[in-house]
Amino acid sequence: MSTEPAFDPITGVFPCQVHWGDCDPAGIIFYPTYFRWMDSATWAFFESVGYTAKRFRAEHLAMPLVSADCQFKFAAEQADRCEVRSTIMRFGGKSFVVKHDIVRADGVQLASGSETRVWGRFASGPGTPMKSETIPDTIKALFRRQA
Amino acid sequence: MSTEPAFDPITGVFPCQVHWGDCDPAGIIFYPTYFRWMDSATWAFFESVGYTAKRFRAEHLAMPLVSADCQFKFAAEQADRCEVRSTIMRFGGKSFVVKHDIVRADGVQLASGSETRVWGRFASGPGTPMKSETIPDTIKALFRRQA
Amino acid sequence: MSTEPAFDPITGVFPCQVHWGDCDPAGIIFYPTYFRWMDSATWAFFESVGYTAKRFRAEHLAMPLVSADCQFKFAAEQADRCEVRSTIMRFGGKSFVVKHDIVRADGVQLASGSETRVWGRFASGPGTPMKSETIPDTIKALFRRQA
Amino acid sequence: MSTEPAFDPITGVFPCQVHWGDCDPAGIIFYPTYFRWMDSATWAFFESVGYTAKRFRAEHLAMPLVSADCQFKFAAEQADRCEVRSTIMRFGGKSFVVKHDIVRADGVQLASGSETRVWGRFASGPGTPMKSETIPDTIKALFRRQA
Repeated sequence: MSTEPAFDPITGVFPCQVHWGDCDPAGIIFYPTYFRWMDSATWAFFESVGYTAKRFRAEHLAMPLVSADCQFKFAAEQADRCEVRSTIMRFGGKSFVVKHDIVRADGVQLASGSETRVWGRFASGPGTPMKSETIPDTIKALFRRQA
Repeated sequence: MSTEPAFDPITGVFPCQVHWGDCDPAGIIFYPTYFRWMDSATWAFFESVGYTAKRFRAEHLAMPLVSADCQFKFAAEQADRCEVRSTIMRFGGKSFVVKHDIVRADGVQLASGSETRVWGRFASGPGTPMKSETIPDTIKALFRRQA
Repeated sequence: MSTEPAFDPITGVFPCQVHWGDCDPAGIIFYPTYFRWMDSATWAFFESVGYTAKRFRAEHLAMPLVSADCQFKFAAEQADRCEVRSTIMRFGGKSFVVKHDIVRADGVQLASGSETRVWGRFASGPGTPMKSETIPDTIKALFRRQA
Repeated sequence: MSTEPAFDPITGVFPCQVHWGDCDPAGIIFYPTYFRWMDSATWAFFESVGYTAKRFRAEHLAMPLVSADCQFKFAAEQADRCEVRSTIMRFGGKSFVVKHDIVRADGVQLASGSETRVWGRFASGPGTPMKSETIPDTIKALFRRQA
């Protein structure tokens, strides 16, 4: 019988708003905006567990993308207040998948997407060669709800 | 002796944050980001006095730009929390000037800029011809601190 | 025995370049840039067969997104000259899938993605309600190589 | 009588196009797009005289902004083909001013702006401290038309 604790991911919340310049001539959100939000949400999620942008820089860490996708369900308009709810759905050896739900303030789900990222380290800072690394268990644990 | 009440403008506050994708390979904010913020700050300022995006759309209002400028004083980095403090410095007959100070959470001023905009109205909605209009005194009064 | 002519899609080519502000502090392309390019490539592709932006506006046409995805294979750097090669892989009744290959000038494939879009029409121009429509055969034919 | 050769600046040309996502719900160009173009035009101008992005990186060079401004004269629409015509109007000891005229394919001037930039060098690559430097005469000469 397994004594493995069930994986129970925590959720990060990134508040955002649709601005005038995020919209296109159809009067709704220009879709790459959702990907900008997803990227910002992932950084905010890591910040929330102690991995700030400053720490990424100091430790030469990186999390480049392997792939990204998004399904658009309901069109957002200027001034809509939203939040991106992020969870890490899966950790591989050197990569991980972040799922993002984008929800309007009234609860309507606007979009849902995912990013697959690699955990990596620059030789000596941004601009220098970057190598993927095995994701430490200590990092994986940060995104798991404690029993 | 003038009985003209002194003009005392109110200040709008638009909170924002420097995101990963707002920065360039030098590791600091890519300067057009400041102009994106200034535009968003102006919309938020009008929203704060009752002129929401929805109202702009319903009344076919517009506020296109005549000019914009910005002085960059101190380089912002990823994750810096900032606010744009906006005041309408001058109302002309059909145009107005919004001054924006961009200040980091610790009080350091990062940039200061201004936008000159025209007050206008679309014939029948975005995409149709737009004409400038005399700015109503009722609107000017909304941006003046009451005695 | 089928007399159905084999479907042989034409390819659109959209030239682009990685600019300073398209890159992030890691010194490589910020990934939502690829989605901006894919969107521009689709518009350019339609323009190349006679469906210009002006015509979209005049006929109240729209092609909103259902979903988008991209796989990132090789990191682009500032000044890299690229092209997006687009084909319509599949037409459904009211939707279609555009496949995009993003290739650097030296032939290296940087990324490949797809967009699923709906064919639609605004009631009376951008901002008014939009309804999906059956894609006319005449449009489908424009993206098929003639025998 | 002065024997000083008259300064006769060369002009760089950066072709660009207004894309769907560069426009806002009013159906015209979102103004920070002009600043993105001006930045790209400056990089392209330096590339045209031999200072490529690769060389900037290799020699740890930088040209951060002091200020930027733009006057908007005529609204650009989706698909408009334009060019940014750039000249260096003035070289100071450590700074320089680039003037940009943004012109539509049919010759209509859409906007004109300027950027004031500092000539600088990173201690050891992007992300490390940057110091301004005296602009070498050899660089100034590159932007002057030869007699």
